[in-house]
Amino acid sequence: MDKIKVIGFDADDTLWVNEIYFRETEEKLCRLLAPYREAEQIIPELYHTEMQNMHLYGYGIKAFILSVLETAIRISDGKLPGTLIQEIILMGKEQLSRPVELLDGVEDTLNALFGKYKLIVVTKGDLLDQEKKLRESGLEHLFHHVEIMSNKNEGTYHKLLNHLDIIPEEFLMVGNSLRSDILPPLALGCHAIHVPYPIIWEHEKVDEPVIHPHFRTVDTLWDIISLLN
Amino acid sequence: MDKIKVIGFDADDTLWVNEIYFRETEEKLCRLLAPYREAEQIIPELYHTEMQNMHLYGYGIKAFILSVLETAIRISDGKLPGTLIQEIILMGKEQLSRPVELLDGVEDTLNALFGKYKLIVVTKGDLLDQEKKLRESGLEHLFHHVEIMSNKNEGTYHKLLNHLDIIPEEFLMVGNSLRSDILPPLALGCHAIHVPYPIIWEHEKVDEPVIHPHFRTVDTLWDIISLLN
Repeated sequence: MDKIKVIGFDADDTLWVNEIYFRETEEKLCRLLAPYREAEQIIPELYHTEMQNMHLYGYGIKAFILSVLETAIRISDGKLPGTLIQEIILMGKEQLSRPVELLDGVEDTLNALFGKYKLIVVTKGDLLDQEKKLRESGLEHLFHHVEIMSNKNEGTYHKLLNHLDIIPEEFLMVGNSLRSDILPPLALGCHAIHVPYPIIWEHEKVDEPVIHPHFRTVDTLWDIISLLN
Repeated sequence: MDKIKVIGFDADDTLWVNEIYFRETEEKLCRLLAPYREAEQIIPELYHTEMQNMHLYGYGIKAFILSVLETAIRISDGKLPGTLIQEIILMGKEQLSRPVELLDGVEDTLNALFGKYKLIVVTKGDLLDQEKKLRESGLEHLFHHVEIMSNKNEGTYHKLLNHLDIIPEEFLMVGNSLRSDILPPLALGCHAIHVPYPIIWEHEKVDEPVIHPHFRTVDTLWDIISLLN
């Protein structure tokens, strides 16, 4: 890892709490829809809707709430009262308004790496929402810039390397999602460090274990410091 | 304008048709809500909702549809049936699925400038939606890259210049919105060419005429060629 020049950090559930807010909104939805269907059936139905809409809506809270609304109407057979539709829209706004909650050790880790590497944020989701979170996080000054991708795959990481004008060995990606943060950079020859987060979205799960000479797993973000030294 | 190195093109209603699709969705909405309110009252009510939600939702079709849903529920006093909610969600999906319709002369203009200047797309709205349109436009290879901003103001254009590593006089912005494409770059000392489009969103309108030595207005995109020679 001695060639590394640029370190990319995933944002949601790597720098700050995120997925748990989606779970909370889903729980509220299940309570709203309790008269129509059991929670065990609502969550898979919502996930199915999200996957069907992915090509049009992409990631982020607005996409999520539109899929929640669609699912709620379908599950209630169009009978969901307007007041509950309003409540779902409000749940989305509340999620968009939540204050940023940094994960343990994030600030110390970034401060320790600042000046030694070019640090960037590599994230997907709503542009406005991610920019807002970064601004509120108080970490903005530590990052050279933010790359917001519509999707994290080999193609988009390849573009990122071109844009950064570096070779794969000079890039390290750090994140909580094997699917989005680890596998694509590894496939290109970059380095990747996995910092698992206890809650992960179904869509980001990977069945196969990852074995690769450029790959490491750590318990907390701070542990990457000792790997880099 | 002989110092110009980079030309930024706005996308919606500068390279391809956009605003008219929002107007069409609004007309459909007025027909759906005809039993509850007159069109003359629905449109300002929707605009009001959009402006109130701007800080949370930002620009783009997903933001628009969420505001349409909120407005529809409010106007109907929560009585809008689920089937019509479903129809509004579908209207949004249809708008996201519309094929790209290039404006006159766009391809010829970009081809004429390609190789002489670094051409970039500078746009706001949904990341996924804009990337999809660019891919479908067949113009992607003519652009060095795409800058998608959550908002177009002096701050974001200033970041863009830093990112491009150029001075203001080396940047020309071309677009249809005085508010987003013309005034902020001019304030920074860049050049700006306005290509008006017959339909413009209320939010993008500017009352004062623009008078500035770095400013030009043209009838069609092709006319910028003669200004640059």
